[in-house]
Amino acid sequence: MEMLRVQYLLHVDATEAEARAEIIAREQTVEVPRSAIADTFVENEILGRVEEVTADPQGGQRAVLAFPVATTAFDPSQLLNVMFGNTSMHSDVECVDVDFPPSLLLSMGGPRFGIGGLRRCVGVREGPLTCTAAKPMGLSPDALADLAATFARAGIDVVKDDHGLADHAFCPFEPRVKACLEALERVADETGHLALYVPNLNGSPDTVFRQLEVAQRLGARAVMASPMLIGLPVFWELCQQRASVPVLAHPAFSGSIRIAPELLFGKLYRLFGADAVIFLHHQSRFPVSEESCRTTAERLTGKWGDIETSLPVPAGGIELDTVADVLGFYGDEAMLLVGGSLQRDPSAVFERSREFVETVHAARTGGEHW
Amino acid sequence: MEMLRVQYLLHVDATEAEARAEIIAREQTVEVPRSAIADTFVENEILGRVEEVTADPQGGQRAVLAFPVATTAFDPSQLLNVMFGNTSMHSDVECVDVDFPPSLLLSMGGPRFGIGGLRRCVGVREGPLTCTAAKPMGLSPDALADLAATFARAGIDVVKDDHGLADHAFCPFEPRVKACLEALERVADETGHLALYVPNLNGSPDTVFRQLEVAQRLGARAVMASPMLIGLPVFWELCQQRASVPVLAHPAFSGSIRIAPELLFGKLYRLFGADAVIFLHHQSRFPVSEESCRTTAERLTGKWGDIETSLPVPAGGIELDTVADVLGFYGDEAMLLVGGSLQRDPSAVFERSREFVETVHAARTGGEHW
Repeated sequence: MEMLRVQYLLHVDATEAEARAEIIAREQTVEVPRSAIADTFVENEILGRVEEVTADPQGGQRAVLAFPVATTAFDPSQLLNVMFGNTSMHSDVECVDVDFPPSLLLSMGGPRFGIGGLRRCVGVREGPLTCTAAKPMGLSPDALADLAATFARAGIDVVKDDHGLADHAFCPFEPRVKACLEALERVADETGHLALYVPNLNGSPDTVFRQLEVAQRLGARAVMASPMLIGLPVFWELCQQRASVPVLAHPAFSGSIRIAPELLFGKLYRLFGADAVIFLHHQSRFPVSEESCRTTAERLTGKWGDIETSLPVPAGGIELDTVADVLGFYGDEAMLLVGGSLQRDPSAVFERSREFVETVHAARTGGEHW
Repeated sequence: MEMLRVQYLLHVDATEAEARAEIIAREQTVEVPRSAIADTFVENEILGRVEEVTADPQGGQRAVLAFPVATTAFDPSQLLNVMFGNTSMHSDVECVDVDFPPSLLLSMGGPRFGIGGLRRCVGVREGPLTCTAAKPMGLSPDALADLAATFARAGIDVVKDDHGLADHAFCPFEPRVKACLEALERVADETGHLALYVPNLNGSPDTVFRQLEVAQRLGARAVMASPMLIGLPVFWELCQQRASVPVLAHPAFSGSIRIAPELLFGKLYRLFGADAVIFLHHQSRFPVSEESCRTTAERLTGKWGDIETSLPVPAGGIELDTVADVLGFYGDEAMLLVGGSLQRDPSAVFERSREFVETVHAARTGGEHW
């Protein structure tokens, strides 16, 4: 029987750990007292099992539980439910790692395009990529398009919408996407460099899938969404069944959960289909460890069954003067997202963008273009 | 200008609180350095404002921020984004309360049926209601239907699916819903008591909306979903645009977020459309305060503009012998969910269910039926 193995960090005394792990095994599957389990199928093929409980050197107890994979119904939402549904409501338990058996990798699917497919969209075969955000919220479609054009003229590879850009009355989705796409086409006519514009999708499923169709019809070659805002299972359906272009994942609302970032960004977002994953760099304005960043990047790019790779996109307030350091940390297989820092001086957006591009190009060893 | 007022609890020193609040005001709206804001519309009509920072008597600093309501685009997902999108990734910040202006109440919509509509489905005009769950996962459709029939024969008002019941190979959605609905119809023919069976919807949007149609076609008169599992905006669309029957909200995966439970359960779930909200009772197996439970119940049933009420459903491991206490705490406008405790002795499920029903009926002052 294939098992889903989930690792929890229990902030409890060693003496209580085994009993708590047993409670989690029931809570996440049968959710009835032990005495109520009368059915042998339920006992043998549904009930979770505690495989290991060990003290964590950093404190707390690590428990590895095995759940029969059939409990997940091979559905993304039910998978989250079995992993952490009710147990998420115990504030002394964190969900820190999961081993997904091959049948789940197959049914969840992973990225449809992967790093290779995304690089093809960008037009750069090797080396680190550059990315920035069209913002702030409140600018008109034309003003955002002008800004995107400035970034493109400076040679930036990818210009994504800020994740805060929705279908606002003051800047509706369709005119914005149209203006930005057209602006980058015009820059390409001038300079020969066609930057990839990535519109942000946000809303309830009906809205998200309508925005996707509009974006694709207008010629967008990639899109972005925030899985925790729209809902992780919506993100899965977007990647697996709806989008015909690569999808970038944004971390908004994700920090609200007690799931380890290297599990959420490094495994779940890739498993559900993100072709690129934006996550917080450890020297950014968000609190995250160097080790977590390294693990996330390794997990996104490493071999994982037949699951495609996903491009690491470190972000969260990378300053222009630290770009070289960040490049050194992630190496060639990464896209650096530098947002606000490029706009710090409104009169020097082009110059700062150009400096960003030149620093990254200097680090491109291969540098071949398609 | 209408404002969305969000209250954050900052776990920082008093000397840092004002500056942190200013950072949040930018982070949640423009997400650029102050110096980059050149546009007067952005400055006056988009940028968040710090209205108040005060020391919390329990520790930490409370900051009230006002965001122009237009930033939310009157969309459920963008509303979450403005409330707590990027700031959720700062582990020293909690989102503890929100004041929604009238335009947001109107556009989000709230419950379609409310307590009155749900009581009409149940057939009990006044007094507390009884609810239990068909489980464990792993039982066949017929076994679950038999169990549901036992509960109904004992007089329980509402039998909901366990939230862990998905579209499993060993118990697919359609046969399960059909078997349970038919079983309760048969009991009604015998006893005159038609219990309300509530199937659980779970999956990506395509699956959830397909399950809804199947359930409604088979005659289900209410459904349940877990907003945090399927995604809060999906839940909103389910309630506002898809379901033609009342919707119950289950708290699975919700505890994973650093949003105060009385905000999430007491306001957001109601605002998004839950006709009944299952939440953790303070004497259950989950850690939650008595005060939080009281606030949640008051918020679900209190007057809130033109927004319908939502029925409080305390749960999370209420034991049969504490039912009278729980009734005393919540009063008439509540439905008690007692799950596993009824099945503790598999040979006495009917007897324990009957005891539950009798305890609750004794507390029904009006007791009128439709």
